[in-house]
Amino acid sequence: MFNWENIFATRSSRMRASEIRELLKLLDRPDIISFAGGIPDPELFPKEAFKQAYADIFDGSSVDAALQYSVSEGYKPLREWLVKQMAGLGVPCELDNVFIVSGSQQALDYLGKLMLSPNDTALVTAPTYLGALQAFNAYEPSYDRLTPNGNRTPEAYRATAEQAGGRVKFAYLSPDFANPTGETIDLAARERLIDLADDLDIAIIEDAAYQSLRYDGDAIPPILSLEIARKGDIGATRTIYCGSFSKTMAPGLRVGFVVANAPVIRKLVLMKQAADLHSSTINQMATHRVAEAGFDAQVAKIGKVYSRRRDCMLAALARYMPEGTSWTKPQGGMFIWVTLPEGMDGAALLAKSLETAKVAFVPGQAFFADGSGANTFRMSFSRADDQSIEEGIRRLGGLIAGEMISRAA
Amino acid sequence: MFNWENIFATRSSRMRASEIRELLKLLDRPDIISFAGGIPDPELFPKEAFKQAYADIFDGSSVDAALQYSVSEGYKPLREWLVKQMAGLGVPCELDNVFIVSGSQQALDYLGKLMLSPNDTALVTAPTYLGALQAFNAYEPSYDRLTPNGNRTPEAYRATAEQAGGRVKFAYLSPDFANPTGETIDLAARERLIDLADDLDIAIIEDAAYQSLRYDGDAIPPILSLEIARKGDIGATRTIYCGSFSKTMAPGLRVGFVVANAPVIRKLVLMKQAADLHSSTINQMATHRVAEAGFDAQVAKIGKVYSRRRDCMLAALARYMPEGTSWTKPQGGMFIWVTLPEGMDGAALLAKSLETAKVAFVPGQAFFADGSGANTFRMSFSRADDQSIEEGIRRLGGLIAGEMISRAA
Repeated sequence: MFNWENIFATRSSRMRASEIRELLKLLDRPDIISFAGGIPDPELFPKEAFKQAYADIFDGSSVDAALQYSVSEGYKPLREWLVKQMAGLGVPCELDNVFIVSGSQQALDYLGKLMLSPNDTALVTAPTYLGALQAFNAYEPSYDRLTPNGNRTPEAYRATAEQAGGRVKFAYLSPDFANPTGETIDLAARERLIDLADDLDIAIIEDAAYQSLRYDGDAIPPILSLEIARKGDIGATRTIYCGSFSKTMAPGLRVGFVVANAPVIRKLVLMKQAADLHSSTINQMATHRVAEAGFDAQVAKIGKVYSRRRDCMLAALARYMPEGTSWTKPQGGMFIWVTLPEGMDGAALLAKSLETAKVAFVPGQAFFADGSGANTFRMSFSRADDQSIEEGIRRLGGLIAGEMISRAA
Repeated sequence: MFNWENIFATRSSRMRASEIRELLKLLDRPDIISFAGGIPDPELFPKEAFKQAYADIFDGSSVDAALQYSVSEGYKPLREWLVKQMAGLGVPCELDNVFIVSGSQQALDYLGKLMLSPNDTALVTAPTYLGALQAFNAYEPSYDRLTPNGNRTPEAYRATAEQAGGRVKFAYLSPDFANPTGETIDLAARERLIDLADDLDIAIIEDAAYQSLRYDGDAIPPILSLEIARKGDIGATRTIYCGSFSKTMAPGLRVGFVVANAPVIRKLVLMKQAADLHSSTINQMATHRVAEAGFDAQVAKIGKVYSRRRDCMLAALARYMPEGTSWTKPQGGMFIWVTLPEGMDGAALLAKSLETAKVAFVPGQAFFADGSGANTFRMSFSRADDQSIEEGIRRLGGLIAGEMISRAA
């Protein structure tokens, strides 16, 4: 029997199964109330608009192009739509600053591939998006903790990276309603982050997957927008903005995008040419048609439903969670992040919860590059109805209260 | 201004623009007869079947699933269809041997990522598929020349790989109607290749992108089939079979597949989870419906048209090419490979041809990992009508004859 381990590259040892993915299987058990998955509610997909878009493509003059190979940079009308969209977010840019990828997860993989040599350092928040760690892991980096509100000096980051055997290459963060916390980085911290990146001479990867899903409070400009305001032009920036249609329209088409400095885009286009030629032509065309026809209305529709679910979950948490626990109060997105008393363990709680309370969530530790955060967990409100939220949080609060009492005893 | 070169990984220096991709732009010039692109004729896309498939998906009960996130291994009914299909090719396998990718180009990227550490050696034919070199280059390998009919010993391969600073990890080849030559590896050479791989303890990557496009002659079993016959079970094999729907149905959906040993598939699934989550759900569903409804009829339809074009091009070559040139006589696929007299240069010929004869083709050198092959070029017959083939080859033959005369003078 052939021993494959002999011929796997060293990087492959860091490709491991995702806890969250394994947990997604629990969604199928009808007796479980699940807040585990972080996926959109299919009831909100613009199905009629997509149906019409595909039908129009097949009836129109672009059907041959829709089914044919196409350029690696992406479908031009979609990129043109994004140029207009980004201008509205305070990011003036041109066609050669916009690149289409197969979901923003692919952008994270490509950016790791572009920048990380083994033992280079990536700065990530703690917690951070688990999928970003998985994407970057393939390129064998070290991680150091990015503290947008913190007090570490550039020298400290530099020294740690040198000790790890490389240099800091980028800071990765999701500034708006981040997965997993739901929290937002404020304006002053965004500005400080640009200072830090300038000082360290590194890139910033701005993961904007949830940015459109703001339900209240004032929008904060994207980091890329702040950097352009400061430096005059996207050509002078170091921020790489990654966007997605997965949370606003539908993830099954796998259409995301990157907006950045033209030299970076050119390198990413070459990388995509070699890695998968281009993203699905027909799906890019359908995405363009649906976005053009009513992106804002679609975002408003989603916001109305998700914000009600968020309110419902926050109200239930306030009602049922015992003293000693705390949680985030997100202004958008899909997630609420719960912190248990120090010493309690989210994974042990989940095991118990699946047995007794029958409520699923995601233990927090996997979201920390340094393995901390055992006393945390993530809940998503995107797919639960009001009644399940109320009932699920009631049971979970009871379970946690019981655990706290037996710990104190 | 930020100097991006400071933070690019070393691997990025090997990501360069593709000559073929740049040449594709020439297809738009109406005064050029182009045999350059290697893309299918859109007239042959099963448009009605795809139109019906997407419409049925939107009208059916699986529309939510079609637009939603899905599992990284791929859409189960499509994988089930592939299990049946592979059985027909002499490859008995099960669901956990089949993995869906975004076009078989992505399989090549993933396999490079899985196996190649920097300075490891990949064995490739000379010439080989340019896109494979581009995909592997990102992982900084050395290349050594695979000679399926040749006489190099395993010891020679081992020694060269050690000198390059690593070990041989795999042999990559396209055994049927390969891009760029159109040639097929015979049965005895396939068997010898398995011997070599066993001896070197390496994998075989069998790129079957053109395998279904056989126009005459008897089918030769896939290498994976021969290895299963020899070893009893796919679980004991080292061949990784990469297939595609791009040449038979339509490339714009980006649906390809890998069939291999389950441990390799499991690792690839983890890699995909981290790299782009999964291939487009709706496109996998549409591909399944169209394949199920009439894959064989579609392949027969394409074969009828392409084989006539191949015959037409071979006849024109026999008529117009001067003595001293030679070319392959493929039994399938899309390509014919021309060899000019030693000392002539395909790239120089192209430059002249675009000016005077107004005929485009792809100079051969880019298909050689070692930079040889300057006196060769590739022509595709997949998209040209009989009249253009006759006229294009007539002009090209005249140009080459003229060049040979002025060289002799």
